[in-house]
Amino acid sequence: MRYQEFTVEGRNAVLEAFRSGKTVDKLFILTGCQDGPIQSIVREAKKGDTLIQYVSKERLDQMSETGKHQGVIAYTAAYDYAEIDDMFKLAEERGEAPFIFLLDNIEDPHNLGAIIRTANLAGAHGVIIPKRRAVGLTATVARTSAGALNYTPVAKVTNISKTIEELKERGMWFVCADMGGEVMYNLDLKGPIGLVIGNEGDGVSRLVSEKCDFIASIPMKGNIDSLNASVAAGVLAYEIVRQRMS
Amino acid sequence: MRYQEFTVEGRNAVLEAFRSGKTVDKLFILTGCQDGPIQSIVREAKKGDTLIQYVSKERLDQMSETGKHQGVIAYTAAYDYAEIDDMFKLAEERGEAPFIFLLDNIEDPHNLGAIIRTANLAGAHGVIIPKRRAVGLTATVARTSAGALNYTPVAKVTNISKTIEELKERGMWFVCADMGGEVMYNLDLKGPIGLVIGNEGDGVSRLVSEKCDFIASIPMKGNIDSLNASVAAGVLAYEIVRQRMS
Repeated sequence: MRYQEFTVEGRNAVLEAFRSGKTVDKLFILTGCQDGPIQSIVREAKKGDTLIQYVSKERLDQMSETGKHQGVIAYTAAYDYAEIDDMFKLAEERGEAPFIFLLDNIEDPHNLGAIIRTANLAGAHGVIIPKRRAVGLTATVARTSAGALNYTPVAKVTNISKTIEELKERGMWFVCADMGGEVMYNLDLKGPIGLVIGNEGDGVSRLVSEKCDFIASIPMKGNIDSLNASVAAGVLAYEIVRQRMS
Repeated sequence: MRYQEFTVEGRNAVLEAFRSGKTVDKLFILTGCQDGPIQSIVREAKKGDTLIQYVSKERLDQMSETGKHQGVIAYTAAYDYAEIDDMFKLAEERGEAPFIFLLDNIEDPHNLGAIIRTANLAGAHGVIIPKRRAVGLTATVARTSAGALNYTPVAKVTNISKTIEELKERGMWFVCADMGGEVMYNLDLKGPIGLVIGNEGDGVSRLVSEKCDFIASIPMKGNIDSLNASVAAGVLAYEIVRQRMS
């Protein structure tokens, strides 16, 4: 298993977890505790938007595995990120043209989890996410991926549009979902393909969409603007599945 | 606008809101308050899985619109449910064959909201939900529907499988998503159609799936069991859209 959750206890250990860049999903602090070290921990937590919960001593004692929590317990997630080469290997092993998801700044962990779940079931060979701004592989993502995180490789890259350029040199084509594109049913999405999904509010950024070979539009027959990001990813992914099966 | 949120303040008003069957999304109670009336309110809240938050007097004073909260404030949602006939009317106005979603016990408000959003954009004429067990139209559902709740009629029925029988007499066909069915691309989903979506964990109940004319399966090429319920709804809905457009 590539994904694991850990409990980190005690002031130094928790502070160290933050400073070493670990993803801390949830922080439990003893109610009323406000000394220097705790304040440093809270400051680090706020930088990373970690959820803080103030709880009673009894609750902390119950949660503690070492019995030495010193008023603070953190839940962290650890995941060995994959390399893009792992995805090409997987495609080769299965004798399929590469099919990779690229997520341009998905922010909601439930969406990220649902998209990794979809990638797995649509037969994609991996998911690429950006290092900065977007949500990483937290415990919530692992849970909402319904186990897919253990099967589908996820790689982190510094720059999505640069990665698209590199993958184009390896023969891949890129499609992103955006308004004003060609209706997806009319595009040829059969070859080695990268499916680019944009941010929940802003869609695909201009820099990234300019690199895409196709802009696909999902027919919108209603009154509102857009589908939920994970639903849009599912609808487009399954149009690719349909074309590959036909 | 058919959907509105209300703030209810004071012990009697809040207790009355619960007892009259209103959907209370969130309950704020003054920390430390534990007298008889408050205990009755908490009991009612627990029956309906209402989120309870204990807050300070300052916070309650800030939230209060009347200044007379008596230590308790509730957020409730009010929505005028539509009738199934409204959906047929809408289809007729648009000159389309009826296309209706039926949700067999969706429990997660984020899923319900996302599905109503999808129903709107896929051009469906309405969404039918069951009266019992499933989640109703709460503030979270309204938010995650991204406004779709103001356009797409939602009706509540006592018994989904009975409703399917009645709608069959009006010429509709029914398809549900389940494993072991025919691959959705090979089904004819063009006529007046009801799309049945099952519960997140258990899928479509046996009583309901027996009433369906088709069981559609979404191709699963991965290692895990199933898509997220709102993603599955989106993928199937857009297969119907594709067939209707072609």
